[in-house]
Amino acid sequence: MELYGYFRSSASFRVRIALALKGLPYDHRPVHLARDEHLNAPYKAMAPAALVPLLKDGDATLSQSIAIIEYLNETHPEPPLLPADPVGRARVRALSLDVACEIHPLNNLRVLRYLTREMGVSEDHKNRWYRHWVERGLEAVERQLAQHPATGRFCHGDEPTMADVLLVPQIFNAQRMECQLDHVPTVMRVFEACMQRGAFQASQPSACPDAE
Amino acid sequence: MELYGYFRSSASFRVRIALALKGLPYDHRPVHLARDEHLNAPYKAMAPAALVPLLKDGDATLSQSIAIIEYLNETHPEPPLLPADPVGRARVRALSLDVACEIHPLNNLRVLRYLTREMGVSEDHKNRWYRHWVERGLEAVERQLAQHPATGRFCHGDEPTMADVLLVPQIFNAQRMECQLDHVPTVMRVFEACMQRGAFQASQPSACPDAE
Repeated sequence: MELYGYFRSSASFRVRIALALKGLPYDHRPVHLARDEHLNAPYKAMAPAALVPLLKDGDATLSQSIAIIEYLNETHPEPPLLPADPVGRARVRALSLDVACEIHPLNNLRVLRYLTREMGVSEDHKNRWYRHWVERGLEAVERQLAQHPATGRFCHGDEPTMADVLLVPQIFNAQRMECQLDHVPTVMRVFEACMQRGAFQASQPSACPDAE
Repeated sequence: MELYGYFRSSASFRVRIALALKGLPYDHRPVHLARDEHLNAPYKAMAPAALVPLLKDGDATLSQSIAIIEYLNETHPEPPLLPADPVGRARVRALSLDVACEIHPLNNLRVLRYLTREMGVSEDHKNRWYRHWVERGLEAVERQLAQHPATGRFCHGDEPTMADVLLVPQIFNAQRMECQLDHVPTVMRVFEACMQRGAFQASQPSACPDAE
């Protein structure tokens, strides 16, 4: 398999973790987002939405990190990244989407660029915007983890699931942007548990071949 | 089943379509977003993320529209909202996430409110922001539909899938906000095909008990 991604893209980071948890080898194909390499014609021909990550598996070209993780989980079931029961699966997917739909889209590079370039928003306002969505979004995740009996060492039970795969890259971003995190103790306890696992450690941005 | 939602919420609309396609009866439980009813203590006690939609099925309380649709598809498999093959499933999920992660989060009510109330953005700038993400996001969907041999009468093949369930509410929003749509002919062809089906017609905002 080949993974087209960017070391600092948290959506790419998610797929790296899933591949590592499954023990699947792959080739890194760096696409430098800050240099707009995702907008080059050869990449866009392969990736119609011009986004990273992109996974090539044989003839198949897959986009959207959650769709890729579900695919990996269906084609390589062990270890499972979703629980066996439908209600548990729905909980893990909902936690994943709480990161993927409620936090991350507001803070990705093209959105931040639009705020400053098209709307003339100041650096200070932009940073407050970033922190607002991360801090409020993680607060919602915290409420769901702290209140729920299915929360274990990880977001759901005592082994990592897709919810942990989504959460960890979001915490890396939050720390890089100096967001407040002391209001989400359960989130941070789960984060620490994840970072004790080799699959999460080995997938972090600083461990990528294209890290700067 | 009970569906907590808001007639104009496109995430609620998605779940209404999925329930209708599956032929599942349910009770509407309106939550008036514009009047901040989702922030009331009784609703937040049930919905830790304070979002709609929320589906109650027996003892289970489910959030996040895509997680709810996957749950309905697992617990009531017919008619299927995902193809049988993993690559096809990944494509349908990716198209769904192209709407759910790349377009919709930038344009929901709380984000638009933050732009005007916290950042002092003008009404005109806010509307341009809205249209920008819808028009560019649908363009990316169009490229994936127009280029791909699996596109049929609907986004994937000749029966509706989760991708169509996500696409239709986004087009309703686009039309309400007078976004440009003539650059996405395949998207609009699929939209028209969906609107010929009773499940999509019966689920639209104007057909809801809480419609204004």
